[in-house]
Amino acid sequence: MSELRWDPLKEHWVIIATDRGRRPRDFHMERVTPDSDVCPFCYGFEGKTPPEIFSIRNYGEPNNPGWQVRVIPNKYPALRVEGEVKSRGYGLYDVRDGIGAHEVIVETPDHFKGMADFTPAEITNVLFAYRARLLDLRNDFRLRHLVLFKNHGAQAGATLSHSHSQLIAVPLTPPVAAKELRVCREFYESHERCIFCDLIEFELKEGVRVVSESADFVVLAPYAACFPFELRLYPKQHTHDFAMMNDRQLSELGATMKDMLMRMKVVLKDPAYNFILHTAPPSQSRPGKPEYWSSLSFDYHWHLELVPRLTQIAGFEWGTGFYINPTSPEETAVFLRDAEIY
Amino acid sequence: MSELRWDPLKEHWVIIATDRGRRPRDFHMERVTPDSDVCPFCYGFEGKTPPEIFSIRNYGEPNNPGWQVRVIPNKYPALRVEGEVKSRGYGLYDVRDGIGAHEVIVETPDHFKGMADFTPAEITNVLFAYRARLLDLRNDFRLRHLVLFKNHGAQAGATLSHSHSQLIAVPLTPPVAAKELRVCREFYESHERCIFCDLIEFELKEGVRVVSESADFVVLAPYAACFPFELRLYPKQHTHDFAMMNDRQLSELGATMKDMLMRMKVVLKDPAYNFILHTAPPSQSRPGKPEYWSSLSFDYHWHLELVPRLTQIAGFEWGTGFYINPTSPEETAVFLRDAEIY
Repeated sequence: MSELRWDPLKEHWVIIATDRGRRPRDFHMERVTPDSDVCPFCYGFEGKTPPEIFSIRNYGEPNNPGWQVRVIPNKYPALRVEGEVKSRGYGLYDVRDGIGAHEVIVETPDHFKGMADFTPAEITNVLFAYRARLLDLRNDFRLRHLVLFKNHGAQAGATLSHSHSQLIAVPLTPPVAAKELRVCREFYESHERCIFCDLIEFELKEGVRVVSESADFVVLAPYAACFPFELRLYPKQHTHDFAMMNDRQLSELGATMKDMLMRMKVVLKDPAYNFILHTAPPSQSRPGKPEYWSSLSFDYHWHLELVPRLTQIAGFEWGTGFYINPTSPEETAVFLRDAEIY
Repeated sequence: MSELRWDPLKEHWVIIATDRGRRPRDFHMERVTPDSDVCPFCYGFEGKTPPEIFSIRNYGEPNNPGWQVRVIPNKYPALRVEGEVKSRGYGLYDVRDGIGAHEVIVETPDHFKGMADFTPAEITNVLFAYRARLLDLRNDFRLRHLVLFKNHGAQAGATLSHSHSQLIAVPLTPPVAAKELRVCREFYESHERCIFCDLIEFELKEGVRVVSESADFVVLAPYAACFPFELRLYPKQHTHDFAMMNDRQLSELGATMKDMLMRMKVVLKDPAYNFILHTAPPSQSRPGKPEYWSSLSFDYHWHLELVPRLTQIAGFEWGTGFYINPTSPEETAVFLRDAEIY
C-alpha cells in the first residue's frame, strides 16, 4: 500500500509508492535502457498485462489481438483503489492511504510508431479513449482529480518504448491544478471573463508566438515558457471540460495534435517529450445523473501542455521554482512555423 | 539582455535568457557530452574565464595558478548587473530586465576530483568562499535572493565536469523561498517556535530517518521526500543565516558534508546530484552598517537540500506538482547509515 505524506514545510503531498520497493542497485541499472525481448503492449502478449478496462477494436475478444487502442490498469500502480481517504496525524506531518487509480492507455498495436507517426484518425481514437476513461472515473467520488499525461522517450520518464499514455486519478487536487483553478475563479469573479480566453485573444492578435491555428484550436509558445520549445494547445472557444468535447471536435483535435507533434519531431529530431491534459476536475457533489457528470468549474479552460525534454531541470530550477529558459518563445514559434512537415 | 517574464496563469516569473541564443541544433548536440580539450577551470587556463572575484590561494597573483578555490562571473550569465528593476506591463503579462548576478565557484584545481573526494578541509574552503560571496552580494540592494547550488554530473544539469558550484542572485524572491519564509513566519507567530527546530527534534527522537549526526549538524531523509535518496542537512541549533556561521562551525559542516557525500557516492555509485543552500534572504532595508548585514528573517532555519538524480521528472510530476517517490525515506536512511565509507 502506498502512502500520501504531507510536508508542512513545503506544503505539499508526496506519494511514497513503497510497493515498487526499489533498491539502490535498481537505480544503477536504470542508467542502461532495459527494453526486454517481449513487449507486453504488443499483439499476442495481452495476457502479460492485467485485464483490459476499455478498448477500441477492429475484431477479436477482449484481451486478445484486434484492438487499436487498449486501456489497462498499470501493473505497478502508484495508487490503488482499496483504502480510506481519511488522513491521520504523525508529529507535524499528515499521512493517508494511497488510494486512486493508475491506468495505461496503449495507443497503438505498432511497437515502432510514435504518436507523431500516427494518422490524425489514430490520434483521434486515443482521444476517444481518454474521454471514455475520464467519464468513467468520475463515478468514483473519492477521486478529486484525473491526470492524463504522456511520457515519450526515456529522458521524459518512459520506461517502455511502445507508445502509451497514462491516467492517474488522485484523491486530492494537485498544487498546479489548485493554483490554475483559483486564478480562473478569481479572474472570473472580478472580470466576468475567462482569463484563458483573454490570453488567447491577445496572442492571436500579437501573432508572434502562434505556431499553428485551425478552425477550433490554436497552438502557442507561451510568453513565459519555462522550457525551450514548450507549447500549449487551446480550444479557441471557451470549454472548461475536455470530456464534453464531441466526436467532430476530437477529430479536429487529432489533426491539430498530428501537426504539432510532426513540427516538433522535424525541428528537434524526435525529442523526448511530456504532454499533460489540463481539464476541469470532476464535480465534488453530484446527484448521480449523467448531465451532472460535467465538471462544475465552468470558469476553467481546458488545454494541453507539451514540453520537449531538451535540457535537464538543474539545481537552480528545482530549488527555487524559478526557471531559466535559453530559447525565447518567439524564436520557438518561428522555428516550428517554418518546419517543412509535408 | 535577458528578460524576466510573469505568467499570470501559473503565477510565476521565468528568466528568458535570450543572450544564450540557442538554436534547435544546439539541443540535438546536447545529447552528446561535449567536454572540450581545454578546461577553463584548470590551472593555467585562468585567462579563458572572466577575471576572478574572489579566491583562496596558496601562492600566486589573481588570475594565475596557485588558488584552491576560485570565484568568477559566469561567462554565459542568466542575469546581468546592468538594468532596471522596474517592471512594465504587456497585455496581461509583466516583463522586467533580467538583472542580477551569476557567479561560478570553482571548488578545486583538480579536474578529476568530485566534491565527495575532497578532504573535509577542502570542502570547508568552498564553504568559506560561499560565505564570502553571500556577504559581498548583500551590498547590492536590488538583489532580493541569493541562490547557491551545485549540479554534479550531466544528468543533474552540469555542462562542465570540473567540480564547481554556482551562485545566482535574483531581483525577486523565488516561489520556493517565498513559501518557506511564509510557513516559518506563520508558525512562529502562532507558536513562538521555529517549525524546523520542532521537526528536527521530532526526527531525532524518532530516529528512523536519521542518516548521520554530529555535534552541531544532522542529516535526514525527509519524511515526505519527493525523490529517492533525497536528503536534508540541518544545523541542530536554530540559525537563520548561513553567512553568520563562524569558522569552527563551517569546519564541522565540511566534515558533515564529506560524510554525507561519501555515503551517497558509495551506495549509489557516484550518482549525478544537485544540492542547494536554503538560507534567509538579505534584509530589505539596511542603514549600511555591517551588523545589519545579517538577514532579518530570524524565524527561518538555514539548511542544505540534496537530491541525487536517479529518476526522470516525468509528465505527472511536472504537470501536477505532485511527486511519486518509489523509495521510502526510512529505506533511504537504512541504506545510507549502513554504507561502508571508511
